[in-house]
Amino acid sequence: MKFTVNRFEFIKSLTDVQRAISTKTTIPILTGLKLKLEARGLTLTGSNADISIETFIPAEDDNFQLEVQEPGQIVLTARIFSEIIKKLPEDKLTLEVTNNYQTEITSGSASFNIKGLDAENYPHLPEITTSNTLDLESDILKQIISQTVIAVSTQESRPILTGVHLTIENGELVAVATDSHRLSKRKITMLDAADSSYDVIIPGKSLSELSKMINEDASKVKVRITENQVLFEFNNTTFYSRLLEGNYPDTDRLIPKDSATAIDFSADEFLSSIERASLLSHAGQNNVVKLELDTGKQEATIYSNSPEIGNVEEKLKFQKLIGENIEISFNPDYMKDALRSFGQSTITVSFNAPLRPFTLVPSEDQDHFIQLITPVRTY
Amino acid sequence: MKFTVNRFEFIKSLTDVQRAISTKTTIPILTGLKLKLEARGLTLTGSNADISIETFIPAEDDNFQLEVQEPGQIVLTARIFSEIIKKLPEDKLTLEVTNNYQTEITSGSASFNIKGLDAENYPHLPEITTSNTLDLESDILKQIISQTVIAVSTQESRPILTGVHLTIENGELVAVATDSHRLSKRKITMLDAADSSYDVIIPGKSLSELSKMINEDASKVKVRITENQVLFEFNNTTFYSRLLEGNYPDTDRLIPKDSATAIDFSADEFLSSIERASLLSHAGQNNVVKLELDTGKQEATIYSNSPEIGNVEEKLKFQKLIGENIEISFNPDYMKDALRSFGQSTITVSFNAPLRPFTLVPSEDQDHFIQLITPVRTY
Repeated sequence: MKFTVNRFEFIKSLTDVQRAISTKTTIPILTGLKLKLEARGLTLTGSNADISIETFIPAEDDNFQLEVQEPGQIVLTARIFSEIIKKLPEDKLTLEVTNNYQTEITSGSASFNIKGLDAENYPHLPEITTSNTLDLESDILKQIISQTVIAVSTQESRPILTGVHLTIENGELVAVATDSHRLSKRKITMLDAADSSYDVIIPGKSLSELSKMINEDASKVKVRITENQVLFEFNNTTFYSRLLEGNYPDTDRLIPKDSATAIDFSADEFLSSIERASLLSHAGQNNVVKLELDTGKQEATIYSNSPEIGNVEEKLKFQKLIGENIEISFNPDYMKDALRSFGQSTITVSFNAPLRPFTLVPSEDQDHFIQLITPVRTY
Repeated sequence: MKFTVNRFEFIKSLTDVQRAISTKTTIPILTGLKLKLEARGLTLTGSNADISIETFIPAEDDNFQLEVQEPGQIVLTARIFSEIIKKLPEDKLTLEVTNNYQTEITSGSASFNIKGLDAENYPHLPEITTSNTLDLESDILKQIISQTVIAVSTQESRPILTGVHLTIENGELVAVATDSHRLSKRKITMLDAADSSYDVIIPGKSLSELSKMINEDASKVKVRITENQVLFEFNNTTFYSRLLEGNYPDTDRLIPKDSATAIDFSADEFLSSIERASLLSHAGQNNVVKLELDTGKQEATIYSNSPEIGNVEEKLKFQKLIGENIEISFNPDYMKDALRSFGQSTITVSFNAPLRPFTLVPSEDQDHFIQLITPVRTY
């Protein structure tokens, strides 16, 4: 095996694949990166128990300046290999596998010799046989991910809640996540998926990694779903994730249908106020802030206090406040995550009672995105 | 006590003083920041066992927009106070101490109430009675610090080596540091200090903190030295450091007077080569790289290897190579620190024998800056 490649373009591909490679794994060969060289180009593969990433450097793409001198394959320890590539002196590098998996990497007058492993021992990636694909705009996919993964559970006690529940039916895609304290639900219409029907749970961590990899170069992402794998294709990259097994709880019944009090905020202004209040709630034992809405006086006030340090009080700016007076306490960190996902839009927050979950929706389009937060009992 | 101040300018002063404040201290009041308000302005003070920093916000300086409403003093927990100030909503803030050291901080519609401590219990800073001051250009001082602190010992087994030895005599300032494996020595001529004579040891950590605080605003730094304290004054800031007690070892005898082999490198090119070689030396058990100089062939080659991972070899570019052939092994991390302190200049590295210390000096001005590194025995 022997090739020459542009070092900077190669580093980009390497960085993508490395997202799937962990230095802590019980399967030693998975700390490695697989390189497979064919006449048509070079394929890099990285994998861990949950995700696998494959990226292809085409021989015909002039950016990569790939020269295929002798096809072959090798597995190299990803961490040290990537450090070496990043430090090489010149714009190009040559990699050659000599006898016994010894691999020589040269660039300018620097020459590294490292031990490789037999690529025959590298696990095979799952074969995806389905030809059914869904096309998603990459920015919409990134938005769906960022708006739902915030509510994914980080606790392994109920593994199913560490995933995002994705259903596609009647031309509508619905993504839901909940850690049982909060919930986030996003819908989009997919006209060209009208005859498809899917119901899968994708690990939140896989989606977060995927989202980091999709950059502005990719306008479309192709999605293929099989029984236990989902596959995302964009540019020259393929991202595999395992699916979570089990039944996702029915979340629709959690979302209240009506409300007693509603207030319209600018999401980013409300976020700043919550960030201030949480300075003191974080310092205390109970991480709680209190919101008091007085519809008669048309006042919204936020409070927090830490017995050791002090307290904070702030009158909030809002656009509209209607309904009954209410005092409600909640975890400000849940509120911050929720508010960040709305960006700079105006949101409507709707309450029923001090101990009933409340909801946040964009004031303009209340049907396609909803976040729900369970309040905290403070007495 | 009550004042109003521009929040952004106040944050800058606060950030400076916070460098001296540690959250881990056995003296609780030292986790606090002292604020002292007088008609002429506001003084902020922070301190730990080693350094104290005082910065003054003058009432007459329009940038700070300081309005002194009622003089007084208070001590506030530095960490939470600074977090609050950074998150406040408006450009200005008002701070008022009410009864029982309760402190109200307001900005826009946000109002924080935190508990303060009696400033009478805050330790007094050392009084510096000497009126003798030395003036140093701030960029020269920063250079002296960065060139010497790299060689300061980080081990407390010989406390005296954790400092930089500073002597001023006959109009010459000499700064030396050594951790007994390497040494760095910098000289400057100070014509206006011709009649001063000092011999002190300043903790390396103090100098590193000081260097971070001196920014481009300060052109001159005034230095005052007393028996057990040194004080640096610049802009509206005063930086106090304790001195180390004891006798610094005589280092002049360590520096070889002649050499058998000498090579001229561009410091930054040599640095890149050493960084590559150290990728493999770090992976192995012995962090060592080998330099082989062949004056007959006019070749300089660097090697490193890790039995588990592989090896690296690189022919180095150089400007001049004279004297006897030599093979010498050293810790690449010491070499990297030394090379970085030369920037992009050309340096002369001089060797005597494989187990004798070697030196690095700027090729252009060999008298004012020298670094020495002890090689490693590899057999």
